[in-house]
Amino acid sequence: MLTFIGLGLYDKTDISEKGLACIRSADSVFLECYTSRLMGTTPGELSGYYGRAVHSLYRDDVEQHPEALLAQAEQKNVVFLCAGDPMVSTTHADLRMRAAARGIRTAIIHAASISSAVCGLSGLQNYRFGKSCSLPFPQKNWFPTTPLDVILQNLSLRLHTLVYLDIHDDRFMTVPEAVDLLERMAGDRQVTIPLYVGIARAGSGEPVVRAGNAKAIRSTDFGPPLHILVIPAELHDMEQEYLEVFAGL
Amino acid sequence: MLTFIGLGLYDKTDISEKGLACIRSADSVFLECYTSRLMGTTPGELSGYYGRAVHSLYRDDVEQHPEALLAQAEQKNVVFLCAGDPMVSTTHADLRMRAAARGIRTAIIHAASISSAVCGLSGLQNYRFGKSCSLPFPQKNWFPTTPLDVILQNLSLRLHTLVYLDIHDDRFMTVPEAVDLLERMAGDRQVTIPLYVGIARAGSGEPVVRAGNAKAIRSTDFGPPLHILVIPAELHDMEQEYLEVFAGL
Repeated sequence: MLTFIGLGLYDKTDISEKGLACIRSADSVFLECYTSRLMGTTPGELSGYYGRAVHSLYRDDVEQHPEALLAQAEQKNVVFLCAGDPMVSTTHADLRMRAAARGIRTAIIHAASISSAVCGLSGLQNYRFGKSCSLPFPQKNWFPTTPLDVILQNLSLRLHTLVYLDIHDDRFMTVPEAVDLLERMAGDRQVTIPLYVGIARAGSGEPVVRAGNAKAIRSTDFGPPLHILVIPAELHDMEQEYLEVFAGL
Repeated sequence: MLTFIGLGLYDKTDISEKGLACIRSADSVFLECYTSRLMGTTPGELSGYYGRAVHSLYRDDVEQHPEALLAQAEQKNVVFLCAGDPMVSTTHADLRMRAAARGIRTAIIHAASISSAVCGLSGLQNYRFGKSCSLPFPQKNWFPTTPLDVILQNLSLRLHTLVYLDIHDDRFMTVPEAVDLLERMAGDRQVTIPLYVGIARAGSGEPVVRAGNAKAIRSTDFGPPLHILVIPAELHDMEQEYLEVFAGL
């Protein structure tokens, strides 16, 4: 059996009781280390907390050579741990399908995801979010402006946009960096993004949530990663008030 | 202090370790009982599991008369429990603002939400969801068709729609009931919804996930509540394959 278990947002205690019990009764414990990361803990600390060896998996281990993992899951109870709520990314969906093709039973134990946590932290209502997008670090000769297309489409429909910020090796895009990139794109198209909401360390005891225009957000110190950004559409009264009270708008 | 704690999706063990520790050290424990419900447990069982008295709150207690709760939170550590991830609904956002207005410190401890769980269960990719909507039970002289407007707009943008199904007193809308309502709206407008994905008991050990056209879904027995529905846009290859393997498409 192969069970995908979400670790939630920030540290070792964000896992559910159900997930923790499943880890402690498993034969083998694997930790996916490349799509995201819990910033409030380490694989070593997780191993101590679970009382179990934790095997780290990198992209190649999952996407190219999952045979070792799958062979174990044919015989034993194997758990696959990842940050957030499992299976939001196609990588893990592919692994679950490969397991099913080998006749392995699979299950998912859910956990908190940044995609819903932003609602509570910002007061922006869940049902007012449109399509989300990812903002990559620009590379030589590659500066995609599709995130701006998504944002503008959502704004025209009066919908908020959740913008996932790039992680590349050990570099984590910050909210001010993201605002710089989006302002550059918006400037090139001669459009204006009136309001940003930056969020840092969701799920920790000290999340930072700040709302404001580009200038205000770029001068805010959000502290250590992970960061995420929301581009709100025109605010409802309750959203406006919430951002004033909890995000310094 | 007032801490909003999410209970996750289904039973007493879907809470995070962090949330459980916070409940056990709190002075007072309140449970919000009217916006949603954990179908795999009861307030009595939760109380036993926490080793604490659990005070149930109904709509009036939170929206009209939160004074008793807030007065306690001025002096002591009070926790406010709710199904899913806290603060997705404006009701709770309002309570957090009232607390802040009285100078009460607040915090949120996140948990799994159906809004991200549907991705793992269905394989439909998170970033392809547009605006979500709620489908109410029709009442005398009141049969709003706005959910269909949202669905059609999303389909035209090639985006999936998450459709929250109504809960009214002890009546929980089922997936087949929801499909009946949407087919009636679609028939009136002479449009066709080609594919539905129904999900029952997300977060439990035996969730049901079924994809198909209206006829196939209406003849499926999804079992006990809670149910939720997704109207997928044109599927990507990986999504198609996932639904074939895990949802009988």
